[in-house]
Amino acid sequence: MDNNAVIITIGDEILRGRIVDTNFSYLAKRLYLMGIDVRIHYTVPDREEWVWAALSEATERADIVITTGGLGPTPDDATRKGLARFLGKKLVFDNRFAQKIRAYFQRRNIPMPESNLVQAYLPEGAVPLENDEGTAPGIFARKDSMMIVMLPGPPNEMRAVFRSVELILKREIALPERHTKIYRTIGVPESVLYEWIAAEEIAGASISYYPSLRGVDIYVVAGSKEAREKATAALDKILLPHSYSFTEDERIEKVIGDMLRERKQTLAVAESCTGGKLAGWIVDIPGSSDYFLGGVVSYSNEAKEKFLGVRHEDLVEHGAVSSPVARQMAEGAKKHFGSDYGIGITGIAGPTGGTPKKPVGLVYISVATPERTFVRRYVFNGNRDAVRTRSAATALFMLWVALKAGDLTKHNFQDGGEFAE
Amino acid sequence: MDNNAVIITIGDEILRGRIVDTNFSYLAKRLYLMGIDVRIHYTVPDREEWVWAALSEATERADIVITTGGLGPTPDDATRKGLARFLGKKLVFDNRFAQKIRAYFQRRNIPMPESNLVQAYLPEGAVPLENDEGTAPGIFARKDSMMIVMLPGPPNEMRAVFRSVELILKREIALPERHTKIYRTIGVPESVLYEWIAAEEIAGASISYYPSLRGVDIYVVAGSKEAREKATAALDKILLPHSYSFTEDERIEKVIGDMLRERKQTLAVAESCTGGKLAGWIVDIPGSSDYFLGGVVSYSNEAKEKFLGVRHEDLVEHGAVSSPVARQMAEGAKKHFGSDYGIGITGIAGPTGGTPKKPVGLVYISVATPERTFVRRYVFNGNRDAVRTRSAATALFMLWVALKAGDLTKHNFQDGGEFAE
Repeated sequence: MDNNAVIITIGDEILRGRIVDTNFSYLAKRLYLMGIDVRIHYTVPDREEWVWAALSEATERADIVITTGGLGPTPDDATRKGLARFLGKKLVFDNRFAQKIRAYFQRRNIPMPESNLVQAYLPEGAVPLENDEGTAPGIFARKDSMMIVMLPGPPNEMRAVFRSVELILKREIALPERHTKIYRTIGVPESVLYEWIAAEEIAGASISYYPSLRGVDIYVVAGSKEAREKATAALDKILLPHSYSFTEDERIEKVIGDMLRERKQTLAVAESCTGGKLAGWIVDIPGSSDYFLGGVVSYSNEAKEKFLGVRHEDLVEHGAVSSPVARQMAEGAKKHFGSDYGIGITGIAGPTGGTPKKPVGLVYISVATPERTFVRRYVFNGNRDAVRTRSAATALFMLWVALKAGDLTKHNFQDGGEFAE
Repeated sequence: MDNNAVIITIGDEILRGRIVDTNFSYLAKRLYLMGIDVRIHYTVPDREEWVWAALSEATERADIVITTGGLGPTPDDATRKGLARFLGKKLVFDNRFAQKIRAYFQRRNIPMPESNLVQAYLPEGAVPLENDEGTAPGIFARKDSMMIVMLPGPPNEMRAVFRSVELILKREIALPERHTKIYRTIGVPESVLYEWIAAEEIAGASISYYPSLRGVDIYVVAGSKEAREKATAALDKILLPHSYSFTEDERIEKVIGDMLRERKQTLAVAESCTGGKLAGWIVDIPGSSDYFLGGVVSYSNEAKEKFLGVRHEDLVEHGAVSSPVARQMAEGAKKHFGSDYGIGITGIAGPTGGTPKKPVGLVYISVATPERTFVRRYVFNGNRDAVRTRSAATALFMLWVALKAGDLTKHNFQDGGEFAE
């Protein structure tokens, strides 16, 4: 057993470009973190012949095969047949699972189409994997030394079934011990993180970087608890001041929200170039009404004056994209919504509107705390969407620093911005 | 030549789940619309051995092979070597392309790392495909009856190079004639569209549905101009009142923006449960400052009163999620920003906050036109994110109907909502 896997995505929808295959990247990442290498990935049509062919090719390449899709109650049921043919087994009706499928519909008080019972057919000897989120069970089967797992296609169902697969893989395979720590960093470019970490000469742990426009996630994977502790002792020194979370998928909006809720403090925002994107992210978090009072998208100068009290003279003298205007937007949001914290963002997202003195990408971001107001000046790279995403992410980053330290000036900023008056 | 293709994605990043592969679905859709079937898709590591193996397997399955990724200035240059080995050719330095790479850096005034010149190596006889968006050229090569196209991995570069590939494919392959029309519909569920269209018995054209939370795109593909005209004559009757565009990727925000700009009219929005998502979409469109004055995210009741003039008594008597409040939000946005049109959205996005009388998913959406104000009541399915996305999309839909017809009451709504007082 060499801890290699092949992933097979099954579905005509995907081969025709109707759907982007997010299941594959999810599975690839989970397997990688478990110590299983994905050697190759296939996407094949939902037809018996192709499912059989892909399973057969996979056998030559790995001992673990994971498929997603093709398990719905379609009349032709190609995936199950392809698996049965590959295994050299008959499809048999699993009464126990048929009961579960019936119960699923009863709980929801909807009549069950008879076609759904096709999902209770499994190759002889295969084991159904329960699916709490839908009716299609996963399937677990073996052939010689090979393990085959079939997962349903809808992402929420796939993830629900894969959780039990992870347990099976951990039990069945001599996986190398894996001890992981995740640093969710913000405000430091990947290249700088890389240099910092390279200088530490960390042994016995592998370090992966997952960058996005909103920050860099760093995964530390070690073969023993001791090795991980040793690595993270060194990494903590570097990364803790820049890590807002150590939990996969936890967003900084959530971390900030929890801090505000705990302190019974509130937030309001004033956005120009981001145009509601920041408020939208904040409201993505369930329960944000506990601390988020609202925002103004002050896209016009008049709106900046009227809703936020930005001074007309400053708009004329310094322009809408300027430090004084960002400051007055943050302070105006705080004052007019009556919140404890305020954020102001004003910038030039492009593609047009830039000048030699004020280029596309120039953005001023301000955070008003209960004590004082900070403004930072940035020139972001990228297209309109990238500039706006970076702007909103940087505003959250600055607020997070303010909530953590009270004072932004003590933070070791590495994000290319500078404090502005 | 049987018009079949294989797509190969090259990259360790993708096999480890660091990146979601959107290039594949883009290419799959483009090829499908050209009349080329994608038979199978591989994702393989960025190593010579694997690139060679995937190309070799692809040969057995199709006459067109398209790869993405692996063309960057990496030191090991595995993709080019894998291609050269597959073709049985040497890599040779293309002077003309080296000049182009140098010029790319000169135009941007940045020094060129020497490693970039590796991108000027091509297998003997292969043709470089120009890349206006970056330094890695695409590569076009032949082996026997097989055409091989290699595209760079960054999506903007991949698309730029693929445009010239489309021209080559159209010239080189006896593609079946393809005549396409795209209807970008909004406000009608896929199942209803399907029933309407099924009743027409359209022959000689294939119809595909691409649904999203924001609407359903319908692609009509016919083998001759006449067949398309015949099909679309029937479809126009059904679909025109529900189609905001006939152009791929054109968003309804853009269509609305163009209508407003043309009429020299303006828009402002007031959002509660969508929390800035709608404003964010509107501002996604370059040039939106021509017609978008701004918005208020009135997440708290106080903000609804203070910034929008919603009456305190109505908030108390009807609650924040009610028709009178939605109406006053739309009218308040219009009045306070001084715009011609106003939108108001208030609802319960969940997961908590629902009651038997006001369940999760209940949303009131209002559009104030220069003449009068309309409110519609919806109960949307799905999780928090789906409810918010549907709400913002429906608001744009209602505004589009208002801009088109002046009066919402004449539209044949199929979206499950109802007019509210």
